[in-house]
Amino acid sequence: MLAAMLDDLIEANQRYAASFDGQGKAAPPTRRLAVLTCMDSRIDPAAILGLTTGEANVVRNAGGRVTTDTVRSLALGTGLLGLEWVVVMHHTDCALAGQSEESVRARLTAAGLTVSEAGQFMAMPDPDTALRDDVEALRRSPLLPRLHVVGWRYDVANGRVVEVVSAGDG
Amino acid sequence: MLAAMLDDLIEANQRYAASFDGQGKAAPPTRRLAVLTCMDSRIDPAAILGLTTGEANVVRNAGGRVTTDTVRSLALGTGLLGLEWVVVMHHTDCALAGQSEESVRARLTAAGLTVSEAGQFMAMPDPDTALRDDVEALRRSPLLPRLHVVGWRYDVANGRVVEVVSAGDG
Repeated sequence: MLAAMLDDLIEANQRYAASFDGQGKAAPPTRRLAVLTCMDSRIDPAAILGLTTGEANVVRNAGGRVTTDTVRSLALGTGLLGLEWVVVMHHTDCALAGQSEESVRARLTAAGLTVSEAGQFMAMPDPDTALRDDVEALRRSPLLPRLHVVGWRYDVANGRVVEVVSAGDG
Repeated sequence: MLAAMLDDLIEANQRYAASFDGQGKAAPPTRRLAVLTCMDSRIDPAAILGLTTGEANVVRNAGGRVTTDTVRSLALGTGLLGLEWVVVMHHTDCALAGQSEESVRARLTAAGLTVSEAGQFMAMPDPDTALRDDVEALRRSPLLPRLHVVGWRYDVANGRVVEVVSAGDG
């Protein structure tokens, strides 16, 4: 029964709440940092980067790509929460890496999803180019004038982060 | 110097990598679960719900709202990674809660951002309605035929999750 899994999560939450120590923390991230990364199950941004609650906003989607929704989120973070820094953190072995839009659409269709020709899934035929493009898109967004943006890649095989686009680039 | 903060993150990552235990984990989340939640700095979904790496996809944006990008991510998760369940987890004290689009735009403009009249920030004048709408949007998305979706709210004051929209609703 899959619903038993939801019960597991609620039980885990009761344990979390019993030793909750976040009382009185405010929404603005104390490091003025947002991490944009992939939804991949192997990525725990707080653990990977040593962040504790209250320190950073975390935005996640398939690929850690820059989209209209990402810009919406970071605009709100900048205007309402005082963000100054963004780490865009892609990762190795991403399901979108080395793919084309056509190959992703074909795989989704084969899996039984109804995918339109116009659907854009933000495949990354060349992962380094995609990461540079995403960093540039944030740097050039007219909605995000004040953010400093870097591009990193997390290696799911060994836990290491490497710099791909530094603060000085671009 | 803000760049020193990036050095902190890289140093923390070196410690993480030194004791990395995720080798050989695969991308498909073993719980066939995605958690959609807010980017808020006070939310650590893994800790709150007792999830370890490899168990769940995590999608985050401002509010934990359902957008075109959310649907893209969950379609990829369904078609490529075998997702079956989604927990939409909004939270108390969200910067978007109790706001209108107009009030959010006014606050962003006051903060110095160049916001167009057409900009949509997904404010939640009524948080319960917004959560129900988001759950319904996923349930009815033609791209996501197979997902079971529930709506929960996390209380940032005490660490507790409460159910708002159950698997049986709708």
